[in-house]
Amino acid sequence: MNVLTRTFKEGRTEVVRIVGGDFFEALQKVLEEKDIKMGKVSFIGSFKKVKVGYYDDKTQSYVGIEFNEGPYEVIAGEGNISMKDGKPFPHIHVALGDHQGKMFGGHLMEAEVLLVEMFIEVLEGQPLERKPDEETGLTIWK
Amino acid sequence: MNVLTRTFKEGRTEVVRIVGGDFFEALQKVLEEKDIKMGKVSFIGSFKKVKVGYYDDKTQSYVGIEFNEGPYEVIAGEGNISMKDGKPFPHIHVALGDHQGKMFGGHLMEAEVLLVEMFIEVLEGQPLERKPDEETGLTIWK
Amino acid sequence: MNVLTRTFKEGRTEVVRIVGGDFFEALQKVLEEKDIKMGKVSFIGSFKKVKVGYYDDKTQSYVGIEFNEGPYEVIAGEGNISMKDGKPFPHIHVALGDHQGKMFGGHLMEAEVLLVEMFIEVLEGQPLERKPDEETGLTIWK
Repeated sequence: MNVLTRTFKEGRTEVVRIVGGDFFEALQKVLEEKDIKMGKVSFIGSFKKVKVGYYDDKTQSYVGIEFNEGPYEVIAGEGNISMKDGKPFPHIHVALGDHQGKMFGGHLMEAEVLLVEMFIEVLEGQPLERKPDEETGLTIWK
Repeated sequence: MNVLTRTFKEGRTEVVRIVGGDFFEALQKVLEEKDIKMGKVSFIGSFKKVKVGYYDDKTQSYVGIEFNEGPYEVIAGEGNISMKDGKPFPHIHVALGDHQGKMFGGHLMEAEVLLVEMFIEVLEGQPLERKPDEETGLTIWK
Repeated sequence: MNVLTRTFKEGRTEVVRIVGGDFFEALQKVLEEKDIKMGKVSFIGSFKKVKVGYYDDKTQSYVGIEFNEGPYEVIAGEGNISMKDGKPFPHIHVALGDHQGKMFGGHLMEAEVLLVEMFIEVLEGQPLERKPDEETGLTIWK
């Protein structure tokens, strides 16, 4: 077990509504315009198309899984913003539902938005930075 | 892509526990008694019965899906409070689990509560208001 | 319907990263070292193995469901910290995804961590305490 903790002060909350377009393009724009380096992300909404990833620890890589028969309810989008290579970097997981209420999801890789309603809770303090980790094969907070 | 952002100050957090009864009736009562106009909602718990919706962008309407063989674990309830027609309005999505751990969910339409443990993080600032949107057919923040 | 509400002040946020080991052992250590008695927990990540519970209100007990073919994406981990028998007690639900993006989950009973990235939003005020409840058979906030 290897545990790292860092204490932050709760700052402002940015509420973001996105209609249409590319999810990560919209989010990255908000992060840069609002100068957000560390924060907590939560959202609900609907995606037209979406690609999620599953992390395979044997091959130490993400396997992509595409869902193109949307729209899909975004039942829970959860994640964090921290720094990677000098830029704000979102790490987001997403739970989706189809027209029968069946659920699927994973690590969010790409999405085309129908509607997103998001909270970004900004954290004040020294931002955490992602660096490559040999043990897990992931880029993690060091 | 059409992005709207508004900045809020984090206010108090109301922790709410509900045992039995109608979910939206209980929530609406709390929102009005505590005068909450804008906030973030998260909860876990268990529902006896539940109806979720799936938004179909072709017909621009919600299709209801009922689950009556409960109880169901409420694995993640996520959403927001904002204003609609002069009243606090909750928009909530819910992820449910059955006795085999299988998951399903969607936009929350109705629920009969076994137990709910909820956080309402109140946001201070000019509340967002929902208005009908021609493009999506939804009532969205304008 | 039986509704209890208590108002808290938002305190600091502890950001926690766990690599490997037992989930609850790591979390309990953080709660005790950081003296956290009341808070909101959210996390994403990946588990190697996991056991979830489903609450059956007929028998008033949790049925355990084990998933041993990991790793599994932790798509949403949501819950709360409050007091039980004089100690900080986590109540956590978890939504998981497999290599096809299929989802399952429930009340978190045990987990072996690959990676966890967690927010603990500390709440200031009189912590809520869990006590046994005859009606539901659960230990709930009284």
